[in-house]
Amino acid sequence: MKQIINDKVDLIQEMTQGIEFASNFKLKKVNQSNILITAKPNPTKVSLISGGGSGHEPSHAGFVGDGMLDGAVCGEVFSSPTPFDVFEAIKSVNNTQGVLLIVKNYSGDIMNFTMACDMANEAGIKTDYIVVDDDIAVKDSLYTQGRRGIAGTVLVHKVLGYLAKQGSSLAELKEFGTKLIKHIKTIGIGLHACTLPTTGKASFEVKDDEIEFGCGIHGEPGVKVEKHVSAKEYAQKMLASLDAELKFDTKKEYILLINGFGRTTLLEQYIFTNAVVSQLSAKKIKIVQVKVGNYMTSLDMSGLSLTVLEVFDKQIMTAITSSVDILGNLF
Amino acid sequence: MKQIINDKVDLIQEMTQGIEFASNFKLKKVNQSNILITAKPNPTKVSLISGGGSGHEPSHAGFVGDGMLDGAVCGEVFSSPTPFDVFEAIKSVNNTQGVLLIVKNYSGDIMNFTMACDMANEAGIKTDYIVVDDDIAVKDSLYTQGRRGIAGTVLVHKVLGYLAKQGSSLAELKEFGTKLIKHIKTIGIGLHACTLPTTGKASFEVKDDEIEFGCGIHGEPGVKVEKHVSAKEYAQKMLASLDAELKFDTKKEYILLINGFGRTTLLEQYIFTNAVVSQLSAKKIKIVQVKVGNYMTSLDMSGLSLTVLEVFDKQIMTAITSSVDILGNLF
Repeated sequence: MKQIINDKVDLIQEMTQGIEFASNFKLKKVNQSNILITAKPNPTKVSLISGGGSGHEPSHAGFVGDGMLDGAVCGEVFSSPTPFDVFEAIKSVNNTQGVLLIVKNYSGDIMNFTMACDMANEAGIKTDYIVVDDDIAVKDSLYTQGRRGIAGTVLVHKVLGYLAKQGSSLAELKEFGTKLIKHIKTIGIGLHACTLPTTGKASFEVKDDEIEFGCGIHGEPGVKVEKHVSAKEYAQKMLASLDAELKFDTKKEYILLINGFGRTTLLEQYIFTNAVVSQLSAKKIKIVQVKVGNYMTSLDMSGLSLTVLEVFDKQIMTAITSSVDILGNLF
Repeated sequence: MKQIINDKVDLIQEMTQGIEFASNFKLKKVNQSNILITAKPNPTKVSLISGGGSGHEPSHAGFVGDGMLDGAVCGEVFSSPTPFDVFEAIKSVNNTQGVLLIVKNYSGDIMNFTMACDMANEAGIKTDYIVVDDDIAVKDSLYTQGRRGIAGTVLVHKVLGYLAKQGSSLAELKEFGTKLIKHIKTIGIGLHACTLPTTGKASFEVKDDEIEFGCGIHGEPGVKVEKHVSAKEYAQKMLASLDAELKFDTKKEYILLINGFGRTTLLEQYIFTNAVVSQLSAKKIKIVQVKVGNYMTSLDMSGLSLTVLEVFDKQIMTAITSSVDILGNLF
């Protein structure tokens, strides 16, 4: 598989430099590192940092900007950034309000972000963290204790980004974020594996008539192999998995996030959206907001994930629909 | 190649229904057609319509919204919509200010959009059109007389969208748009062909160590086969082609649009961005704005295009950086 790259050792350095250019310097690289922070920090609010391995673009640097994150720490492809880089990011966005780290649940990320959190607190910077574990597919794996953090993470960025801008304290953000995460559930399917830039090869093999159900975002296969079916049938299966987990209730309201993994076209994503919304509407489940697009990719993997957020608090809709100024937006 | 679809005959109907849901009804489908218009039209301005074959999402429905287009007409995959659909779209967004059609230069689109334009004028709706032909790779082809209209088209949407909102008349928009198009040049490369949803097969074959230089956005091969090289070398070759066409001038200012064709990751797009901006900066060429992302795809084709817009008028930067409310934005 051909890719548009240069030296493989410089992938992420060149990417973060490109992001600085692509942001028109609204984001800036910190001291030649792979940390990107907003160039115009707001000193009156708690700062939010996310990050993890690269290969999930636009996550997370694409969500840095007014109304969302203040910084993103980019590791190598599918590898956690070091605690020193995370600590450096914390120092870069620090002000008297404190710093909250939004961490996806992978063992490497947990270890390095919590270590950085300790380093920051020891250095007198008020820092805390929350762990996103929205994936309902697996419980414990080679990479995770408990459930993985996947596409639902961007909803956490958005809601907490809004609340931070509104003036919530570090403790309030941690409390609300922790509750929010409990109401976010995601399930994914993988049709074709991604191409690892380090090898130029597919990360796993799937047969022509099969797919991986419960796919993660790190080039790993899903939890079970199933037959390839239609968009409508995928919608049914994925909604059934989510229903088993969160028990859809006609008296509640939900937000949906349909996330393309990279190669899957928007044409397919919209066809899938139509299937999902139609099926939920037929069951009188109230959908108050739908978001569709490539939010958290797995390089060029083919497939998508479906996230459901139960609206347990009125602020959530205001937060999700508030306007932001982020690199990930086309205009 | 597996895809997330249902019946192949309903692809675009289901897609446009999905888009209506994904827009949270900020866009609406017109009478069961594949026309999407803004649900809250502004009656005091000229309406802008674009469209063409589907398979280029987010183009063009992703650019309908406050500050950009008022409607998009979606044909079948890589096929022009009918004149009747375009006429229907014109009627749907018509007000006393008139309607401007922004058409990519393909024979089918030209025929059908100009026919619709005539039908509208005969029906008393003040309508005009402009043709985008930014691709410098080919002059005349199986599909086109003159040069093709590709990713640079979205810059026309953005600039005219701003001017229309500011109150420019139909004649002014046509005049400015015509001048604008002359200052937009694009060149693309294709590394792997796209998968046609109608057949599930690749639209052309490229060898493992070769690429198509001067690639279009309709699954067609490029104008010449070249060896696969590094991001830096692609940047050099593409900038040399553009320079031959527009003669970069250190006294002028330029806007860049780097557009992914579908499968090419943002990681690669940012690495390429870094190469392009670094090379231009080394030559003292002044880049005042950079946009990077999947603006006009060719289904899941692998590759990207580079567009250069020469800033010949002060309004252009204001227009490009003005905020909009469009489906194509992630938040």
